[in-house]
Amino acid sequence: MRSVGTKMSIQKDHDTGASFISRDSLHTKEKMAEETHLTELPGKRLREEAAKENGGVSVQMEESNGVAAPAECISTIIPGWFSEISPMWPGEAHSLKVEKILFQGTSDYQNVIVFQSSTYGKVLVLDGVIQLTERDECAYQEMITHLPLCSIPNPKKVLVIGGGDGGVLREVSRHSSVEKIDICEIDKMVVDVSKQFFPKVAVGYDDPRVTLHIGDGVAFLKAVPEGTYDAVIVDSSDPIGPAQELFEKPFFRSVAKALRPGGVVCTQAESIWLHMHIIEDIVTNCRQIFKGSVNYAWTSVPTYPSGVIGFMLCSTEGSAVDFKHPINPIDAEYSHVNTKGPLRFYNSEIHSAAFCLPSFAKRVIDSKTN
Amino acid sequence: MRSVGTKMSIQKDHDTGASFISRDSLHTKEKMAEETHLTELPGKRLREEAAKENGGVSVQMEESNGVAAPAECISTIIPGWFSEISPMWPGEAHSLKVEKILFQGTSDYQNVIVFQSSTYGKVLVLDGVIQLTERDECAYQEMITHLPLCSIPNPKKVLVIGGGDGGVLREVSRHSSVEKIDICEIDKMVVDVSKQFFPKVAVGYDDPRVTLHIGDGVAFLKAVPEGTYDAVIVDSSDPIGPAQELFEKPFFRSVAKALRPGGVVCTQAESIWLHMHIIEDIVTNCRQIFKGSVNYAWTSVPTYPSGVIGFMLCSTEGSAVDFKHPINPIDAEYSHVNTKGPLRFYNSEIHSAAFCLPSFAKRVIDSKTN
Repeated sequence: MRSVGTKMSIQKDHDTGASFISRDSLHTKEKMAEETHLTELPGKRLREEAAKENGGVSVQMEESNGVAAPAECISTIIPGWFSEISPMWPGEAHSLKVEKILFQGTSDYQNVIVFQSSTYGKVLVLDGVIQLTERDECAYQEMITHLPLCSIPNPKKVLVIGGGDGGVLREVSRHSSVEKIDICEIDKMVVDVSKQFFPKVAVGYDDPRVTLHIGDGVAFLKAVPEGTYDAVIVDSSDPIGPAQELFEKPFFRSVAKALRPGGVVCTQAESIWLHMHIIEDIVTNCRQIFKGSVNYAWTSVPTYPSGVIGFMLCSTEGSAVDFKHPINPIDAEYSHVNTKGPLRFYNSEIHSAAFCLPSFAKRVIDSKTN
Repeated sequence: MRSVGTKMSIQKDHDTGASFISRDSLHTKEKMAEETHLTELPGKRLREEAAKENGGVSVQMEESNGVAAPAECISTIIPGWFSEISPMWPGEAHSLKVEKILFQGTSDYQNVIVFQSSTYGKVLVLDGVIQLTERDECAYQEMITHLPLCSIPNPKKVLVIGGGDGGVLREVSRHSSVEKIDICEIDKMVVDVSKQFFPKVAVGYDDPRVTLHIGDGVAFLKAVPEGTYDAVIVDSSDPIGPAQELFEKPFFRSVAKALRPGGVVCTQAESIWLHMHIIEDIVTNCRQIFKGSVNYAWTSVPTYPSGVIGFMLCSTEGSAVDFKHPINPIDAEYSHVNTKGPLRFYNSEIHSAAFCLPSFAKRVIDSKTN
């Protein structure tokens, strides 16, 4: 999962006339409106407009678990398919075939959908954006967790910001040195839905070392006593909308303060194929705040836009951290944690490989980190 | 590009009623027909059926360069978008927004489309499958070429099978040690279309060391005198249909025979996320034929299914080849080849990183190579 609450909006494609729901933000709404004739419509009108404009094409919805799944809650581009369309990745869309809608609800923060896909298992969607599928969630969860935790000796106290599905918790809890795991997730519905539909992900909550805090991650971090954590993992949404703060200097300062000297942070940091300009800014900010190491890593996640996702890995002043050469391997340890199953993606080799960047990205990122 | 000629067929989705064109093969046709109610319809009937069954939805086509671009030549899922749907990756589709169809034709081997996309530049499509986009072609072309050529000292004679767009030639020609580059592409239309619409890719043909052979790669290889080449690069399509031979033992035997002792081959080898069973077979076959090294590498290509593509890298008996540690770096060399622009993706670090596999793939592949 890579999202906390974001604002939902309804968007119209000016060429095709297709209407769909996408994630957007107050910050970028005006700009997007100019480009794409963004309009907000109430649900009912959307359904009618979509039906009219798409020549009667609409998603076949089913009721399940007593929850109605009306047509406006899923992109209506391909009948029977979910299409992920967003101004964050204009001009492209990834679609998954829907077998059955299992859950649909609206929390205080976002629209939440769970569906059974044909070939990717169950899928969690927040505000129209795929957060995880059973088939490939291992790549994201294992990498965002073990890249930081395998880079320091004996991590004891770990904080997760976001990550309400519990997948990062599952991975953190593989580390036997860890004594305390705090998680601060803004949206309780995400936690509940994950426990109901993704037991192999939410299994992370079963660990007695875990304490769940429902609330705003930024506020939580501000209240943390200085030097509390060995590692902070920020499993955040994209930096437009409510999560924007999580990519800016004040937030990074709070993280640095919450970490012990030589502590580490790992934060979701977008795709080098789609968002190099955002990554440039994040790297520049991190370089100013974190006086230890500042590194960018990336990995393959087929159901994320462009098929990859990146991570910023930084350490505070203190014992030097060489992220590229993990000193706390977990490879052999997985046999001891039967309830979580073996590691499916992460190993020490792929840890080091994640820091090797294509030339076009390396040139930009190196110029900001050196 | 990753395709040579394959047989086109028309497919119907039994749930959605949508019709689309996809690549298929005689070998798998019966099986697919059972699963998806595969039917073959003449073009006109398809157009009518598609219009009727999709409630009037169809791709808006334009005429360009005097070439008509009828609706049956592109997937008709999203009006104004190209959707890549295939039985090779059921239940998912990647779509690109179409600005303009630039070319559409049918060769003796396949259906050929070039369109201008909104955000990925010009796109080459063969039988409904994206072969290259201007935005991300660098990743595939540079990796399939430099992974083998940077692993051996002073490559002099190189053979390319497939790769009619010229992108692999462009990359091979960066190597100053190379004296002779043969290419055998089955479909002249691909060559001509690339020269017309993708000059920065087809620039590879300008090199005087290149000799183009239009014909069947399997037959060409059989006629090659033993020990001719230092390297063979197989830029092939998926192993259903005409390209199936390129993944089987007799073909690999021809390649091994055509290579000098200690020579290397690099062949397109599918996605670890989608086709592990195919990869298992390829690895097993290669292990039996190639008595030097046998390795699997992978890289990110956003517009290929699952966002990644893999390569088999093998060497014949002779001087040992350690693919994971390139001994013939090209990183600094690109400044001398101005007409081709700098390397955008490949460097020595990402070369080595490409051989580091996720645990789920490593377990399977290691069990076949050791």
